[in-house]
Amino acid sequence: MPIRLEDIQAARKRLQGLVQTTPVNSSRSVSDRLGTSVCLKLENTQTTGSFKVRGSLNKMLSLSPEELKRGVVASSAGNHAQGVAYAATQLGAKSHVVMPETAPLAKVLATQKYGAEVILKGRIYDESFQYAKELEKKHGYTFVHPYEDDHIIAGQGTLGLELLEQVPDVESIVVPVGGGGLISGVATAVKALRPEVRVYGVVSNVSPGMLQMFRKQSVEPPTPTLTIADGISVKKPSQAMYEGYISKLVDDMIDVGDEEIAESIVYFLERAKTLVEGSGAVVLAGAEKAEWDLGKKCCLVLSGGNIDLNLVSKVIERGLSKRGRLVRIAAIVPDRPGYLMKLTNVIAEKGANVLDVKHDRVRAGVRLSETAIEFLLETRSSDHIVEMQDAFRAIGARIL
Amino acid sequence: MPIRLEDIQAARKRLQGLVQTTPVNSSRSVSDRLGTSVCLKLENTQTTGSFKVRGSLNKMLSLSPEELKRGVVASSAGNHAQGVAYAATQLGAKSHVVMPETAPLAKVLATQKYGAEVILKGRIYDESFQYAKELEKKHGYTFVHPYEDDHIIAGQGTLGLELLEQVPDVESIVVPVGGGGLISGVATAVKALRPEVRVYGVVSNVSPGMLQMFRKQSVEPPTPTLTIADGISVKKPSQAMYEGYISKLVDDMIDVGDEEIAESIVYFLERAKTLVEGSGAVVLAGAEKAEWDLGKKCCLVLSGGNIDLNLVSKVIERGLSKRGRLVRIAAIVPDRPGYLMKLTNVIAEKGANVLDVKHDRVRAGVRLSETAIEFLLETRSSDHIVEMQDAFRAIGARIL
Repeated sequence: MPIRLEDIQAARKRLQGLVQTTPVNSSRSVSDRLGTSVCLKLENTQTTGSFKVRGSLNKMLSLSPEELKRGVVASSAGNHAQGVAYAATQLGAKSHVVMPETAPLAKVLATQKYGAEVILKGRIYDESFQYAKELEKKHGYTFVHPYEDDHIIAGQGTLGLELLEQVPDVESIVVPVGGGGLISGVATAVKALRPEVRVYGVVSNVSPGMLQMFRKQSVEPPTPTLTIADGISVKKPSQAMYEGYISKLVDDMIDVGDEEIAESIVYFLERAKTLVEGSGAVVLAGAEKAEWDLGKKCCLVLSGGNIDLNLVSKVIERGLSKRGRLVRIAAIVPDRPGYLMKLTNVIAEKGANVLDVKHDRVRAGVRLSETAIEFLLETRSSDHIVEMQDAFRAIGARIL
Repeated sequence: MPIRLEDIQAARKRLQGLVQTTPVNSSRSVSDRLGTSVCLKLENTQTTGSFKVRGSLNKMLSLSPEELKRGVVASSAGNHAQGVAYAATQLGAKSHVVMPETAPLAKVLATQKYGAEVILKGRIYDESFQYAKELEKKHGYTFVHPYEDDHIIAGQGTLGLELLEQVPDVESIVVPVGGGGLISGVATAVKALRPEVRVYGVVSNVSPGMLQMFRKQSVEPPTPTLTIADGISVKKPSQAMYEGYISKLVDDMIDVGDEEIAESIVYFLERAKTLVEGSGAVVLAGAEKAEWDLGKKCCLVLSGGNIDLNLVSKVIERGLSKRGRLVRIAAIVPDRPGYLMKLTNVIAEKGANVLDVKHDRVRAGVRLSETAIEFLLETRSSDHIVEMQDAFRAIGARIL
């Protein structure tokens, strides 16, 4: 039996004062881009950096004092881990989180910081999951599933209630889809109160299982791939979430790829001044790609902001490079004094900014009498880059 | 005569629907750090990315149709430029913005995007200012001063009114101080309605003139220095702003340096998931450094988010490096096959992640039979780095 509106309303009462009412901000640039009035639900500013704490806390609050005393166990390499750790610690319970041995340092540290005992076990998530289930049996811990759990779904649904109050004239809502807990909870709340509001889902094309189910296609097991939307990368879509919620309540779904997601991360950062993780940034890429009827007011749910800063750095550089704002140009010139000066004169004339320069004499395609000089340049646009390359050629350089 | 509360209330009415009511978000991590309940006024998400549009629009709305028709002129290399450009375009007026020839590409492009004609003139800001004044005389444009203007100050003051409504129990407000327009407007509103609320200012130590005035010290002309808080870098503090507002309404001020500001930018990004420019991030560094009575609830005004993404990348890397999360280690080893493998074994064992590796045979301190291998590593902490260095030494490497 799927949960009902009342379960979400009860969760909301329970969570009052324990989770944040995250702000909603209208964004002119995203509105221009999507062609309708768009607001952003800044759930990336939620405690623990994602919506997960809503479900985790609602789950913990449903446990008996005995169960809390025995402690809880979960497996996750991401936001669920932090949500469970934080929720347990808030209620004075011990939490044990099993993470794959390859889990990023930053996530391990964050989960420990919230008070969990982190156990690194398993090469992939499934093995961590199995080990967590073993610990459940062996020690009597309560296992906290990331989405197949009524209390978890009801907790995530509180975001939907909040949103309807904050944006009463909303006509469509776009939600990231991983396991499906968030969209199921939100759609349950929204469709019960405002059935005319459309609820759309976006998955990562690295794990399109739920989308394939939604389109009644055969579900292919995904090839394991690293993705910047790791938080919504799910090995096998949940039949229960599909049948109980998604098939009935979601209006449409689409998938997006890493390149589009990276662009969305940079866009949110530059234009909306907000840091969104890959799993959250999918909503912009999806809303742009799909031909959905967003109505007069659309709300994008930015579900989380837990992205490693090292990755942010890389994504920014990639994004700038795609827009012609950053480029690596290798010019092959005679290996004689003066040529670096000639090239730098061109660069200064054209008004580009040198960030890095390297010489490479053994590069493929470089003759014995030549050297490759590779510049990392800050440029104005793709046209600007072409101009620069032409000017390099005009002084006798070959461009690699 | 300084402006009064009524001027700000009138400005607010005028600006209704034209500028955003930016959200306020409470931040658990900043609260923990400052030891009291802290909320963030996300003015970095304002249209044009900063509070400047409030003042500019209020100014333009005060002009006669004839004045609007003749157009406006301003000089700025930053947020004021974008505010003026946007405001003029909204009201169908032409705007001319004089920027120093050295202005960053990103700022020129953004100002043009908002509809201004950008004129690159002058090596430093003062020369651009002079040229803008010439254009005022020559063409009859209205010159829009960034702060010494009643309509500008009243416009910025609307942020204060908004804040008091959004956070009725606020006991202290921390505001960045450049020319002084924002803090003067905000303090005028706040002290008129809630005189017990404390208003604190933070300046950059690169241009501490206003602080020196406030402390009744002699005002030293600042040495021209590049700073990440360029938006609040002012050559000469304004006597008018000091006498009319700051000396009477501001409870205390402090200055902070670039290192502290950079750390604050990274902190806001990582913990509050929000992108704040250097001139806005000063509030956290200042509130932490000063021994102010912040009361039970403090609000930090994040005045703008217009920071070049290239700079964000650099600031992140610097920030991670300061926390021991990123390190460059050069190990000097015999220039013989196998040593790179030995080193990478150590790195893998210690669980660090290699981001880059370079060989350098001609580095100072490297003997003919040796090579320096320089690693860029993602690490856990400063202790982790020391461990790694010790392990390098244990296999016979010298550390540079």
